[in-house]
Amino acid sequence: MNHYPESILNLIQSLSKLPGIGKKTAERLALHILHGSDTDAGKLASDIIDMKNRVKFCKTCFSLSDGEQCRICSNPARDPSIICVVENPSDMAAIEKSGAFSGCYHILGGALSPMDGVGPDEIRLKELFSRAALKNTKEIIIATGTDVEGEATASYIAENLNKNNLRVTRIASGIPMGGDLQYVDQVTMQRAMEGRHGF
Amino acid sequence: MNHYPESILNLIQSLSKLPGIGKKTAERLALHILHGSDTDAGKLASDIIDMKNRVKFCKTCFSLSDGEQCRICSNPARDPSIICVVENPSDMAAIEKSGAFSGCYHILGGALSPMDGVGPDEIRLKELFSRAALKNTKEIIIATGTDVEGEATASYIAENLNKNNLRVTRIASGIPMGGDLQYVDQVTMQRAMEGRHGF
Repeated sequence: MNHYPESILNLIQSLSKLPGIGKKTAERLALHILHGSDTDAGKLASDIIDMKNRVKFCKTCFSLSDGEQCRICSNPARDPSIICVVENPSDMAAIEKSGAFSGCYHILGGALSPMDGVGPDEIRLKELFSRAALKNTKEIIIATGTDVEGEATASYIAENLNKNNLRVTRIASGIPMGGDLQYVDQVTMQRAMEGRHGF
Repeated sequence: MNHYPESILNLIQSLSKLPGIGKKTAERLALHILHGSDTDAGKLASDIIDMKNRVKFCKTCFSLSDGEQCRICSNPARDPSIICVVENPSDMAAIEKSGAFSGCYHILGGALSPMDGVGPDEIRLKELFSRAALKNTKEIIIATGTDVEGEATASYIAENLNKNNLRVTRIASGIPMGGDLQYVDQVTMQRAMEGRHGF
């Protein structure tokens, strides 16, 4: 690779630090940028810097935001009385893609995992409990993961929320749509049976 | 995707213009840059700008270079009397990786293709003929592609180089190493037979 000028080698090295980008792909990307327009390259560089400078956490729900409050919290069409609790911004993204929720979110920034040293103070539980205590909060939907840590976090939150007129719910577990019953694991099957409902 | 702040969306859009990078990958890369250090992000951005500003063509062989002359032309260990003619910098890269050549290069910047409007004046043939005419040039190795355009370009160059004591050669065609004979196409097989040699 050392037949390339230093400036190209530098860019190849920086690009190959990105996830899923090996030396070969980095080389291809660098040459594409080199042969592309100055405008495109300048825009790519400035977009990187701009994003790093502008993005912070929403002061209400702790999702990613350009300003003080994220697009969802500052949208008057969203219902702030229903709060969906998720572990990460990517979980929020998955729920948003489904279009099935019109309330607001609370991003914990992880799940309880005492083995890894993550206790109640390491994730944003205090902030959640303060929001739950607000007079106009009606429902907390717990949408943490269905793994051991996510389940433990869900139980912990449910136990600590005891306010009159506050509904605390958990998203449903069961057979995924389009799933073949024979390939469903035992725990999911148990949940699906337990959660059975009438037509 | 529009739950992301604008600055992240901008970067995702810029990244997804790169070859082989779709929306999903661009999203993953943008979030990686976001969660990475400011130093890494700053270096990536400045490497892009730096490369665009610094890289130009070597004045001798027209390969990519940070300075007036590329690393190979300015390396006293390389033999400037043997010039290997290639279509593109990536072809040069392939030859350099093999380590089989210690001379210098001439990058044409394409191959003759009258159908696409690429005639002798559109690629750097004039510059090649000037270099070939130099007193100390001993051999021109033609390493253009083995497709129709590359072959035509090779023939054109060979016909136009008639200087005393100048050797004009073409890199060998034949069965690729490790290749199974039954999968070799007819033209390659013909070349391999024509080019047969003693032990």
